[in-house]
Amino acid sequence: MMIREDCAALDAADKLAGCRARFALPAGTIYLDGNSLGAMPANVPARMKVAIEQEWAEGLIRSWNDADWYPAPQRTGDRIARLIGAGQGEVIVADSTSVNLFKVLVAATRMRPGRGVILAERTNFPTDVYIAESVAEMTGCELRCVDPEEVMSAIDENVAIVSLTHVNYKTGKRYDMEAMTRRAHEAGALVVWDLCHTAGAMPVYLNRCEVDFAVGCGYKYLNGGPGAPAFVFVASRHLEHVRQPLSGWHGHAQPFAFTHEYAPHAGIDRMLTGTAPQLGLISLESALEAFDGVDMEALREKSVSLGDLFITLAEQELAGLGFTLATPRDADQRGSQVSLRHAEGYAIMQALIARNIIGDFRAPDILRFGFAALYVRHVDIWDTIAALKDIVTSEAWNTEAFRTRKSVT
Amino acid sequence: MMIREDCAALDAADKLAGCRARFALPAGTIYLDGNSLGAMPANVPARMKVAIEQEWAEGLIRSWNDADWYPAPQRTGDRIARLIGAGQGEVIVADSTSVNLFKVLVAATRMRPGRGVILAERTNFPTDVYIAESVAEMTGCELRCVDPEEVMSAIDENVAIVSLTHVNYKTGKRYDMEAMTRRAHEAGALVVWDLCHTAGAMPVYLNRCEVDFAVGCGYKYLNGGPGAPAFVFVASRHLEHVRQPLSGWHGHAQPFAFTHEYAPHAGIDRMLTGTAPQLGLISLESALEAFDGVDMEALREKSVSLGDLFITLAEQELAGLGFTLATPRDADQRGSQVSLRHAEGYAIMQALIARNIIGDFRAPDILRFGFAALYVRHVDIWDTIAALKDIVTSEAWNTEAFRTRKSVT
Repeated sequence: MMIREDCAALDAADKLAGCRARFALPAGTIYLDGNSLGAMPANVPARMKVAIEQEWAEGLIRSWNDADWYPAPQRTGDRIARLIGAGQGEVIVADSTSVNLFKVLVAATRMRPGRGVILAERTNFPTDVYIAESVAEMTGCELRCVDPEEVMSAIDENVAIVSLTHVNYKTGKRYDMEAMTRRAHEAGALVVWDLCHTAGAMPVYLNRCEVDFAVGCGYKYLNGGPGAPAFVFVASRHLEHVRQPLSGWHGHAQPFAFTHEYAPHAGIDRMLTGTAPQLGLISLESALEAFDGVDMEALREKSVSLGDLFITLAEQELAGLGFTLATPRDADQRGSQVSLRHAEGYAIMQALIARNIIGDFRAPDILRFGFAALYVRHVDIWDTIAALKDIVTSEAWNTEAFRTRKSVT
Repeated sequence: MMIREDCAALDAADKLAGCRARFALPAGTIYLDGNSLGAMPANVPARMKVAIEQEWAEGLIRSWNDADWYPAPQRTGDRIARLIGAGQGEVIVADSTSVNLFKVLVAATRMRPGRGVILAERTNFPTDVYIAESVAEMTGCELRCVDPEEVMSAIDENVAIVSLTHVNYKTGKRYDMEAMTRRAHEAGALVVWDLCHTAGAMPVYLNRCEVDFAVGCGYKYLNGGPGAPAFVFVASRHLEHVRQPLSGWHGHAQPFAFTHEYAPHAGIDRMLTGTAPQLGLISLESALEAFDGVDMEALREKSVSLGDLFITLAEQELAGLGFTLATPRDADQRGSQVSLRHAEGYAIMQALIARNIIGDFRAPDILRFGFAALYVRHVDIWDTIAALKDIVTSEAWNTEAFRTRKSVT
């Protein structure tokens, strides 16, 4: 039997405990939804104040040069590169994950002419499937959408690109990136990984796994702020062959030459389209300082510790209360979240949020708990499980206010 | 002969003079580059502080509901609608101009099956042509790119969509939106107008002109901040027929139902793709308050007054100094900028900027001066022309520092 003091002891021994002070967390709140919107790093407001009141208001147009706005997408991409096992010049920040996926999928079909299939899987994050469907329609490809366990066997010589979400947004289940990428390459296919629920949550080894493309989100575990711009990775060996369809001026070899003909930039800049969203980009860039000096393997170790603890305590404290585990027990098969199923999941989550413990709900019955290891503590896990136990045993969830759906997200 | 006092008198009589106080302009600077990056409205920092330090840091994920983040793209679009003659629910804020143009052009080719031509013109802003080229390749259409004076006659029964930049970014020359749209419709074609250099600069009457689609920029005359998100207009009569290719989850009828199948939202939301860039969006939304109570016809009147004054003074003061007017003299044929050509334009502009008078330069020889009528004064025009005169007559531009290109933008 674990008790709260055991959790406190784990926190006392936590080498990353000091990172929590890098975030401005609201008092009295336990935040387990960093997989949806990351908490705010404490250095962001001061940086944004400078960006807005000095660089924009005083510097005006000059700041594109003088405040180094222009190279911010590349610079921020290089910062993210370290977290996902990419090299310098292989990652750039731009647009949204959906838009970047569109670029990559079209580029990939062009790199594999004669192959008519885009392979995706049914439990990919929905937008990934919607985008793949659109790309298939526009490129004359077939979208082959299979169940997760069928992906491996569905990769054949007709597949141009395999598009997979690395960590499932509902269950937290994680693919074996290396094995799946190898299988795709054996069949001559390319692969793109959606890292929305991985980047910043745990180490990723894109180059070690010989991944071709990746896309991901800036506002979850990277803590870039609401709607922060996304990133896109292209392996350097592919860069010169990539022709992406959203060929806007910022992807041009010389954007400010304003030539009539499009000529893609030689490097990762070719993945850009329009003017970079500087305010969001500056927020993301400064937020990434929260990872300074953080060893990603140590981060993973803590993330596993938090996840294992959550599962252990859920079994110890919530047995017989109607919860089932939706996430693989084996840490090697999961990301940095644990999900529970419960028939009254929506109302239970509302009741939990009312107690300032914030996770989220995904239909039909999933309660999601994300563990951003930079700021979540082991005692937070204890307190969350204890609250869940109390909410269910006392039927605190069973009120009109909690049962009625009102939130959009 | 006009003298500076005449300009001061014009300012004294200016009914919009009070609007200048709505902006935080740097002391001692004349800013004539609002057509590239708008000045910062004075209310923005306080709003951003709340967005960052309260809504994000304290509200966290709850702010998507509680701080009304979720409907911000629609709400901000509705605010822009008034400025461009659109109805409520016809404009939404999303992505960049380039990305929005891609959506519109593909959607238009789908609405005109059997017509194989996208018609653009050579002096469109380059990104518009690059994007049209990509859409042509992906849809199997031909991109027909003609000279400005040939557009009217190039519209035939093969044209699916006519894509035009309303006000030319270099010369400030403006198309007759109504006549061109009518001609396109007579031939059965659709039309999309790029309003980057029009929205917020002067009234636009999209619905009166029966325009089909429009796209535009949030960071120029709308003053939304560096890289502010763009907007897209779809005439309500077309909305249900529009199938845009960047079919991300936020354009779905029910984004948070996470269904496997894409079903477009019934309204303008279908033009969305990924998660809205909230920080940029909030900045843009609050910046638009600078237009509160401003009659767009009155704004245009002042813009014309500033432009006419600039041309008059240029002729009076700069005669024989190597300048030529690149912008139509007739106000009915121009936007809210005046451009001068000069063989030493680059160095002259650098010398001008060194005196805190900020315009910009576009190769090979264009000096651009944008007149954001909410904050530019008639005396600013006088002082700019006087500085140009001094810089050229004294050859102050002719230094190594000014002649050497170093700015990216």
